[in-house]
Amino acid sequence: MVGYKFMGKAHSHAYRDLPFYFDCETEPVLQALAGRDEEGVKAAAEKMGWLSYETDWRRLIERDDIDLIDIVTPNNTHAEIAIAAAEAGKHILCEKPLALTMEQAQRMYNAVKKNNVIHMICYNYRFSPAMQFAKKLIEEGRLGKIYHMRATYLQDWIMDPKFPLVWRLTKEVTGSGALGDIAAHSIDLARYLVGEFDEVTGMMETFIKERPVAEVSGGLSAKSDSSVMKEVDVDDASAFLVRFENGAMGVFEASRFAGGNRNGNRFEINGSKGSIRWDMESMNNLEVYFADDEAGLQGYRNITCTEEQHPFADAYWPAGHIIGYEHTFINLMTELMKGLSEGYSPSPNFDDGIKNQEILAAIEKSVETRGWVKVEQMKLVENV
Amino acid sequence: MVGYKFMGKAHSHAYRDLPFYFDCETEPVLQALAGRDEEGVKAAAEKMGWLSYETDWRRLIERDDIDLIDIVTPNNTHAEIAIAAAEAGKHILCEKPLALTMEQAQRMYNAVKKNNVIHMICYNYRFSPAMQFAKKLIEEGRLGKIYHMRATYLQDWIMDPKFPLVWRLTKEVTGSGALGDIAAHSIDLARYLVGEFDEVTGMMETFIKERPVAEVSGGLSAKSDSSVMKEVDVDDASAFLVRFENGAMGVFEASRFAGGNRNGNRFEINGSKGSIRWDMESMNNLEVYFADDEAGLQGYRNITCTEEQHPFADAYWPAGHIIGYEHTFINLMTELMKGLSEGYSPSPNFDDGIKNQEILAAIEKSVETRGWVKVEQMKLVENV
Amino acid sequence: MVGYKFMGKAHSHAYRDLPFYFDCETEPVLQALAGRDEEGVKAAAEKMGWLSYETDWRRLIERDDIDLIDIVTPNNTHAEIAIAAAEAGKHILCEKPLALTMEQAQRMYNAVKKNNVIHMICYNYRFSPAMQFAKKLIEEGRLGKIYHMRATYLQDWIMDPKFPLVWRLTKEVTGSGALGDIAAHSIDLARYLVGEFDEVTGMMETFIKERPVAEVSGGLSAKSDSSVMKEVDVDDASAFLVRFENGAMGVFEASRFAGGNRNGNRFEINGSKGSIRWDMESMNNLEVYFADDEAGLQGYRNITCTEEQHPFADAYWPAGHIIGYEHTFINLMTELMKGLSEGYSPSPNFDDGIKNQEILAAIEKSVETRGWVKVEQMKLVENV
Amino acid sequence: MVGYKFMGKAHSHAYRDLPFYFDCETEPVLQALAGRDEEGVKAAAEKMGWLSYETDWRRLIERDDIDLIDIVTPNNTHAEIAIAAAEAGKHILCEKPLALTMEQAQRMYNAVKKNNVIHMICYNYRFSPAMQFAKKLIEEGRLGKIYHMRATYLQDWIMDPKFPLVWRLTKEVTGSGALGDIAAHSIDLARYLVGEFDEVTGMMETFIKERPVAEVSGGLSAKSDSSVMKEVDVDDASAFLVRFENGAMGVFEASRFAGGNRNGNRFEINGSKGSIRWDMESMNNLEVYFADDEAGLQGYRNITCTEEQHPFADAYWPAGHIIGYEHTFINLMTELMKGLSEGYSPSPNFDDGIKNQEILAAIEKSVETRGWVKVEQMKLVENV
Repeated sequence: MVGYKFMGKAHSHAYRDLPFYFDCETEPVLQALAGRDEEGVKAAAEKMGWLSYETDWRRLIERDDIDLIDIVTPNNTHAEIAIAAAEAGKHILCEKPLALTMEQAQRMYNAVKKNNVIHMICYNYRFSPAMQFAKKLIEEGRLGKIYHMRATYLQDWIMDPKFPLVWRLTKEVTGSGALGDIAAHSIDLARYLVGEFDEVTGMMETFIKERPVAEVSGGLSAKSDSSVMKEVDVDDASAFLVRFENGAMGVFEASRFAGGNRNGNRFEINGSKGSIRWDMESMNNLEVYFADDEAGLQGYRNITCTEEQHPFADAYWPAGHIIGYEHTFINLMTELMKGLSEGYSPSPNFDDGIKNQEILAAIEKSVETRGWVKVEQMKLVENV
Repeated sequence: MVGYKFMGKAHSHAYRDLPFYFDCETEPVLQALAGRDEEGVKAAAEKMGWLSYETDWRRLIERDDIDLIDIVTPNNTHAEIAIAAAEAGKHILCEKPLALTMEQAQRMYNAVKKNNVIHMICYNYRFSPAMQFAKKLIEEGRLGKIYHMRATYLQDWIMDPKFPLVWRLTKEVTGSGALGDIAAHSIDLARYLVGEFDEVTGMMETFIKERPVAEVSGGLSAKSDSSVMKEVDVDDASAFLVRFENGAMGVFEASRFAGGNRNGNRFEINGSKGSIRWDMESMNNLEVYFADDEAGLQGYRNITCTEEQHPFADAYWPAGHIIGYEHTFINLMTELMKGLSEGYSPSPNFDDGIKNQEILAAIEKSVETRGWVKVEQMKLVENV
Repeated sequence: MVGYKFMGKAHSHAYRDLPFYFDCETEPVLQALAGRDEEGVKAAAEKMGWLSYETDWRRLIERDDIDLIDIVTPNNTHAEIAIAAAEAGKHILCEKPLALTMEQAQRMYNAVKKNNVIHMICYNYRFSPAMQFAKKLIEEGRLGKIYHMRATYLQDWIMDPKFPLVWRLTKEVTGSGALGDIAAHSIDLARYLVGEFDEVTGMMETFIKERPVAEVSGGLSAKSDSSVMKEVDVDDASAFLVRFENGAMGVFEASRFAGGNRNGNRFEINGSKGSIRWDMESMNNLEVYFADDEAGLQGYRNITCTEEQHPFADAYWPAGHIIGYEHTFINLMTELMKGLSEGYSPSPNFDDGIKNQEILAAIEKSVETRGWVKVEQMKLVENV
Repeated sequence: MVGYKFMGKAHSHAYRDLPFYFDCETEPVLQALAGRDEEGVKAAAEKMGWLSYETDWRRLIERDDIDLIDIVTPNNTHAEIAIAAAEAGKHILCEKPLALTMEQAQRMYNAVKKNNVIHMICYNYRFSPAMQFAKKLIEEGRLGKIYHMRATYLQDWIMDPKFPLVWRLTKEVTGSGALGDIAAHSIDLARYLVGEFDEVTGMMETFIKERPVAEVSGGLSAKSDSSVMKEVDVDDASAFLVRFENGAMGVFEASRFAGGNRNGNRFEINGSKGSIRWDMESMNNLEVYFADDEAGLQGYRNITCTEEQHPFADAYWPAGHIIGYEHTFINLMTELMKGLSEGYSPSPNFDDGIKNQEILAAIEKSVETRGWVKVEQMKLVENV
């Protein structure tokens, strides 16, 4: 695994904890952790249970005892590492978003296809039992024809103007702000549950135009005493309208300036036969409405997705005993293990990653052109 | 009052009930109700306590014993009635939206200004105590600089494809569908709480393209045995992005196809110091978040706005004893009575009506042009 | 009507407003309001729309133009007024609880029976559409055999130790504190929905032992500058366990010391086939759970009881447009009007009042004896 | 560790996962798992990561490489194992409730005291960050003087009359039903947050009087094809009233017949200055009300206890990223590790276990005597 901050912790834990809950033919071995700072990576490897460490990620790729490269570094490094890994025949799990640009994403995609390696991208929220169950309901036609999805991903961790310019706020490292970091998750859930995007139009805002330079820049929280100010070149918030290929309407918003919302990844989907609502902060619950419930008894049901009927839930605790954020990673990795055993790339994989990237690019383009942008055109233009 | 269906009932009740709760210098007397169908209007007048009735609204305007004309007819008749009323020196309360087009709205506005009559438009949701209290908090700076408003107005009463083509679904009578009927309310709350709109871009959808012709067409519910189908020419749902003049972002959606939402008029506003959330279906409650609450104790407070600190609440019941939909009309009409006594047009009045109409028109234009439209340009273009 | 404070306002409004929403064969005429203080009663009569006033309630009983006596005075006066009214052949609506003691209640009951007048007691919470709908579900067997009811009625209006000794805190005027004032409501809902009480055991507490003497003593709120302190001789809070005749278990609590709960009249009922939950502060909503819902899709449904299937709701507004506290009185009075037309005493009437009183008495006795008390024994003992 | 079903899984996971999140001086090594069925215990040991297994728990006690005995067996075996372990100088973590009877509990308590071993009892719900934070608020006086606690622990897993007679429904194995299994948790939270119990009076019910004999009897779920019926001799539901030593009132209810409630461990505490509410099914949230919040802005705050101010939360994920049921065990075991390092028995320990047992015994006695029972008398009577 390359990287060991917030996502590194989440992935490491998932690999460790997975065999306790699930019986997979392939089981993860935490061979080696890579990071540039020897002291840091050594301590992290020890703490998180990695058997060895490297200070250059290229060493991981050279090693024969490593089959899977997990990329949890900042977004600007994904392409180089993934391409090198693919060319060395290593399987890949990559953090989202896939890359900074469509061009990078396309090269990554080509590399995994050419080298025939297993690939996944870590859109972990799909793997809450509630989301898996939602998918099942929709596939069974329980919601009917989908008319609407409205999704927000609301946070508030950078509202303080003194919060420093960490890497997640720097375009050359991260690509975009709220858009690529959190709206990308909503887009993945939308593609998973509703379908492909036809066209988009959006807006992006940076409310705090400059911030103190960060002294240390990992993780989500940071303090800075720096008086040196620098321009913020990514979006604090983004919103966009969507026309899905199946005719559904989408309304999306992501913000890091929505006070009182720590991790408000929420949506509602309305179909001709039913509706669902979900909120990651209460991730075990799915609200479900059926239009054909008896008249007078129609209303959203609040379902705690901890029962045997709910995918993945069975592996954990009895009904009503909730699981948390980390279990979305564990569940995702059981899919990865299955893919490794059986020789396919489970969804979400780089196909999903590149489609997500296309949508992000189309939104950014729509902001520039102040009009609607076809997602498909995006691809054509970029792929030339 | 002209008209006696859903809104006619709400207004009639409010006039009757107002003196019980409030001491106004001017008190309403229910002089006369007008409607074309003699049998219908007679029964309605009797039932709702009107002292007389007319079968031609022009008769109301001729009568000397009538000071105020209340217009609760379909939208395509607002302009003619209001202009005639203003020219006869009658004060006016008009249902929303003001008119079908900016041109009509402008003429109505000119008429009330020229004839110096008191005028209001019935954006009643402002008058829930929670909204009045929200306004107070924002004016006192308790939310700081506003960054975001996201509002939905979700209904589901026409999802059945067999639901007939009532007047609310016919462009020449109503102007637009979800946009003018319900998004207009969200726009009014946005203008009230956040400020003026700078530019917008939107989308509108009609999911069910044709419906059976309606046999009877008043109110919200209707059945039709008709096998004659006709095209639906208004929107089932609309969504739009907003840039407010003060820099805030807005994301709005209105739909009549959001199953499980009977009257989901909801929003959240985020500012630098605090946030609020509201839902008309729990209209007595306002959720309030303050960023400067002690660390560890930050979270949305659920406030039941039934206390003496909450505007209008004092007139009703002790704390915790809720009021309902009808009280928003009563409260609005106390303002109207005050305006009549003191000689001014309380907000929301035709100024608000016309600004709302400009925004609706700008959204419709943005749908045509598939790009952003300045609200101010809208006015310039239309006013020539 | 005798009395014109909080309940006087609620009743007066309901009589006035009832004909607007309902078509009753008998319609209320607000003939006369009685109160001892001429200035007060005159102003109240005028404000609330009573045609005349009296300063002695006995005058109401003497008047031929009055058919119904509505008693909204403090509890210690109910018996005398009700008995006099019954003996004069007047029909009666009495505020709850019926009386201070079983002995008084029995005499009132005997009077209405002997004189063959229509009688009701104002347990208004039964008349929210959600409660009427709950009753219907239970009667249809939708919840199966009832196992549990747990109910709380939580308020916090007297938590300030300086809050004065108003009449509601004085035993000789009110009988008991939280028990008779608010637990009595929960008991009525329990009898209505679950059935008769077999035996009870309870506890009562007075947290603030003495309070300043009240200067003015009407309504729920009051201030006192008095430095004269007097003992509080009623309960601030009461709790009791119940065995219902049908075998269900009950757990009840009422308190005026439950901070943050302004009017928390709430309960949950669990049966073999389903459960319901309700909260008066969101009185339009009923949460309903069905054990035979499809596995994986089981969860409480949140139903807004504003639809045509919900009793009384049809008279008001379209689905999703809520009603409030005052409508429970209006609905109750439509039943009273029907009873007056058709010559029967609609439930809840004095039969319910006396059974409720028996239960209150049994709870008080259980507190004294520190053991379980049969409700039926209570009656036998008291009736001798 | 002795036992490997539901609790065995929870404990094993916690030992494994603890070092990932916390840096403890003492770290758990999963030396050996004991169980009578060799095949079962072998498979469980392998699956859950135990280094060895034994088919007789006595072997664990004999082994020198084992310092801590963790008892997760049915309640009737706790005493024998714990006493043997203590006498062998092993430290002990015991599942709750401590024992079947006060007499057993007393002997266990004496054994750990005499042999000076570290002891804890696994009342894990104390260790959700929300509960630890609640404790801190109460200790700081933020709620003032406590007036009320009302707690329910509601489940529905045995409502089907065909659900078999598993060990949790058999008195000689488990002691009591809902009372010892789940009310015991509420009692522990009450003692932790409010204080010691002075006296109690309760009721216990068994709704389904006989059930089919169980074929396999571990865990919470089971099926039986048996047509042999046997009497159920434990309570399906229990409720009790409490007078705390500090004068607070308590109302408690536990049931396995509360349909729609899978694991409804909930309570509300009201004090003179503030109130809190909590629900284990949303265990990350604590609702907090402060009476001295500004008038008009008073309301329950919904706090997600995932921030650095919330005990234990810091070890996991960023704010708004929730944890689950299993983390309560991890947190508890960090306390145990600390106790082992520093030589003390962290709370909750056998002192808490025995006090909890006294209360359970007093409730059972009150059911027999149909009156109030002093908790302290209980001890005196039982200890002779």
